[in-house]
Amino acid sequence: MAFTFQINDDVVFNHDERLLAKAEANRPVLKQRVIQPTRLVDIVADEAGLNGYVAVDNEQDVARLTDYPQGRDGSLVLDFGDHQVGHFSIDIDSVGSPMDAPLYLRLKFAEIPAEIAADSAEYDGWLSKAWIQEEYIHLDTLPTHLELPRRYSFRYVELKVLDTSPKWQTVFSKPQVVAESAVEATDAPTVQLADPQLQKIYDISVKTLQDCMQTVFEDGPKRDRRLWIGDLRLQALANYATFDQRELVKRCLYLFGGMTTTDGKIPANVFTAPQLTPDDTFLFDYSLFFVSILADYQAQTNDRAVLDDLYGIAKKQIQVAAQKVDPQGALRLDDAWPVFVDWSNDFNKETAGQAIFIYTLKQFITLAHLVNDEAVVEYETLLAQMTRYARETLFDDQQQLFVSGEDREINVASQVWMVLAHVLDDNQNALMMQKMVAQLFPITGIATPYMYHHVVEALFEAGQTKAAVQLMKDYWGKMVDLGADTFWEAFKPEDPDFSPYGSPIISSYCHAWSCTPAYLIQKYL
Amino acid sequence: MAFTFQINDDVVFNHDERLLAKAEANRPVLKQRVIQPTRLVDIVADEAGLNGYVAVDNEQDVARLTDYPQGRDGSLVLDFGDHQVGHFSIDIDSVGSPMDAPLYLRLKFAEIPAEIAADSAEYDGWLSKAWIQEEYIHLDTLPTHLELPRRYSFRYVELKVLDTSPKWQTVFSKPQVVAESAVEATDAPTVQLADPQLQKIYDISVKTLQDCMQTVFEDGPKRDRRLWIGDLRLQALANYATFDQRELVKRCLYLFGGMTTTDGKIPANVFTAPQLTPDDTFLFDYSLFFVSILADYQAQTNDRAVLDDLYGIAKKQIQVAAQKVDPQGALRLDDAWPVFVDWSNDFNKETAGQAIFIYTLKQFITLAHLVNDEAVVEYETLLAQMTRYARETLFDDQQQLFVSGEDREINVASQVWMVLAHVLDDNQNALMMQKMVAQLFPITGIATPYMYHHVVEALFEAGQTKAAVQLMKDYWGKMVDLGADTFWEAFKPEDPDFSPYGSPIISSYCHAWSCTPAYLIQKYL
Repeated sequence: MAFTFQINDDVVFNHDERLLAKAEANRPVLKQRVIQPTRLVDIVADEAGLNGYVAVDNEQDVARLTDYPQGRDGSLVLDFGDHQVGHFSIDIDSVGSPMDAPLYLRLKFAEIPAEIAADSAEYDGWLSKAWIQEEYIHLDTLPTHLELPRRYSFRYVELKVLDTSPKWQTVFSKPQVVAESAVEATDAPTVQLADPQLQKIYDISVKTLQDCMQTVFEDGPKRDRRLWIGDLRLQALANYATFDQRELVKRCLYLFGGMTTTDGKIPANVFTAPQLTPDDTFLFDYSLFFVSILADYQAQTNDRAVLDDLYGIAKKQIQVAAQKVDPQGALRLDDAWPVFVDWSNDFNKETAGQAIFIYTLKQFITLAHLVNDEAVVEYETLLAQMTRYARETLFDDQQQLFVSGEDREINVASQVWMVLAHVLDDNQNALMMQKMVAQLFPITGIATPYMYHHVVEALFEAGQTKAAVQLMKDYWGKMVDLGADTFWEAFKPEDPDFSPYGSPIISSYCHAWSCTPAYLIQKYL
Repeated sequence: MAFTFQINDDVVFNHDERLLAKAEANRPVLKQRVIQPTRLVDIVADEAGLNGYVAVDNEQDVARLTDYPQGRDGSLVLDFGDHQVGHFSIDIDSVGSPMDAPLYLRLKFAEIPAEIAADSAEYDGWLSKAWIQEEYIHLDTLPTHLELPRRYSFRYVELKVLDTSPKWQTVFSKPQVVAESAVEATDAPTVQLADPQLQKIYDISVKTLQDCMQTVFEDGPKRDRRLWIGDLRLQALANYATFDQRELVKRCLYLFGGMTTTDGKIPANVFTAPQLTPDDTFLFDYSLFFVSILADYQAQTNDRAVLDDLYGIAKKQIQVAAQKVDPQGALRLDDAWPVFVDWSNDFNKETAGQAIFIYTLKQFITLAHLVNDEAVVEYETLLAQMTRYARETLFDDQQQLFVSGEDREINVASQVWMVLAHVLDDNQNALMMQKMVAQLFPITGIATPYMYHHVVEALFEAGQTKAAVQLMKDYWGKMVDLGADTFWEAFKPEDPDFSPYGSPIISSYCHAWSCTPAYLIQKYL
């Protein structure tokens, strides 16, 4: 998640210390693993590679790194064999005459080969260039053991010697990363699938999830490195299907529950360092997904204590959202509190928003029954109104598809979310999904695995298993074909090199909301 | 000192632990002083400024730094009021929305305004770009207290925000430098001179010396930050005339004395971090100046213990150098062991080399008498031979000037060093200096205060006080006019913007060998 821009710096937040203490009590101890690079590579222009570059074996032996001293403008690219999230260190020495100038070194950490090839100075997008994983370092004396204090997300590391002096060169040895995650690969049961392509998709989605599971569920370990509620919902589902590390979900629920606005709203994301801080971004669907995450957690764990702690906050999300529903049962949003649905703003989101509210309202009603909330009737009434409005006004009987907005736009998101919300019956859902595939596929203009996830899940929910699997293969499978070690924040199959930020050095190639194939395969296949 | 390029990485050195332990025992404890910036400035193109830039007051108040938050590409330039050598720190925070990206900050430390204006990426000279005092720093969380681990040499600090995010800005507060030196300004007696221009020259030369006095006499605190013997000789003389911090001279004598080659030669410079390491650069005159520094130290301190420890090493320099003298008393050097005299290689150095040997041989003979070395006769014979050769063969009776090399070149360095070595009598010296001023002034092609020092001193030695003072004013006075806070490594009055490296960002604007006016004024005025 990123790509959403709001400033609401006048909003006042609660800090519920009791709930936040529970969040802290469930903070995981990160598991560490020391990993060495597997080879030295050259980054070579190649149309077949993502953004036009691939990494190819070079003739040098990574075990004999000290045989390759480097002077001004010399560089080595280490390949760590797979995507890694952690802390990098390396030993550095000089050879030749005594060291008569500092060493000036640039280290670049890259999730994909094209990031090494990209010139950071040319990046001019709106998203902060501070995210570029590149460090300039002066070392006044050698030998030294260089331990970088920051965490990086990468597979490749370029060691570029900006300068030594004409009298000596730099030698490197013992590069390593201490990889970190709240879980280890072996914490998830091994799954053997008959279909080798699905197996690859499954394994990479688990690796993606693992690398995003840190002291919170991060959206991306490269960027933004923080807890977004839309990502969390999908990560929690994938986590239940794999690592089943429940404490981390609990922690994240308490983090959101402990930091609502004074009028009760949950922010779209929170920061946890240097101190717990809610962001000032608010998205209608993201606030509601707190209900969804709590309901999913409850269904998975039956953890009544968490439900008792957080039910009131979940209810508040419904209450605040309900204020946006008119007497006819129509959701009427304004710009101050937009619905996200997907990054793109090139489609009408009204009907998808209505469906998401219905989806979460149903989950809320389940919870309300569990806690014997007498007010449940009120929400059942609201559900009925919103469902009726959806069926009677938003559904176009002639086209047998949902329309959205004044211009009665027919788009993918509306159909998908209405299926997920089960507003129509199973037969109608099946027909609707078939019509969607016939009319709106192949999909264009959707750039996020987040939206593709919902499309695939809706196909599964509507019994269109074959189409669901095909779409999963066409989408995540194509990332695999393009060399993905983990799944990406953004991907348009019709334009593989697309970056929402204009450069691969800012894009996140290990992003939480793309990790769901493991969940989808476990649940539906 | 820099600008000399040799690789002799097969030379083997002694490490005399007894002498090096004495060097370590005389390591000074640095004196620290906390200094705040005095104003915020703009760096403005102005032909009157060195390299085309000056710093002008801007309207912002440095005491209200937090009133000037900075986003992407924003910058502030702090002026610390005078040249500083030390460690910089600053407090940094964010304002606006929560910090949703790292801060990416560039700090640039500049001795002169033009360094701020220069684009480091454009520097392409042979000298290591690692010397450019510029750091790129990512800060993942704010607020923070940033303490840079490296030492810088500067007056101006540019804080350039490379990026925040569109949602927040950076605020700075409490910038400071902990300035360091082996001496404090108050350690030197205050000197009141009638001539205000000489007063300025005097004061700035003392400041230059102070900032170069660290755990060794450094050549320049910006670059190369190490102990060169040619600089040391002049620094020690200036030090006796001002701070008179004798332990530091003693330490440096022991450092050189403790690290000779296995055939006895003293290297041109030594490194002291991370461990004591002699450089593999050898210069004929620099090796001999060990004798000169020891003799000057002895004359100043009468410290017999140091003489007893180091006399043998001084003698070895004379013995090794004597092998280069032919039976006629002519010095015959080869490329493997060049004489420095000055940076420029555009003049013939043979006669100047002969004079420098005579100069140091005389000092050695004084020491030999002090220790009652019976071999002194041998060196008196050598001195007589070399002096005779100089008078009879190198001195051109018709021109009344010394010639150098096969082409009988007449240059400044030959005359100057023959005067300093007192090869002729005082009358002849006076006449020779008058002729030099008449024929070779105004000087062109000399870029170093090191060579200008010797010219001025020779004028004084030859009784040409007025010409000496005038040259001091024309040279160091012109640096003052151009805004010098400390005196520079290189300066050509006929081409003020000249840099031997092609860029001010590599030049050193506080350089030891330019600190001698204090010595010259004290000794001769």
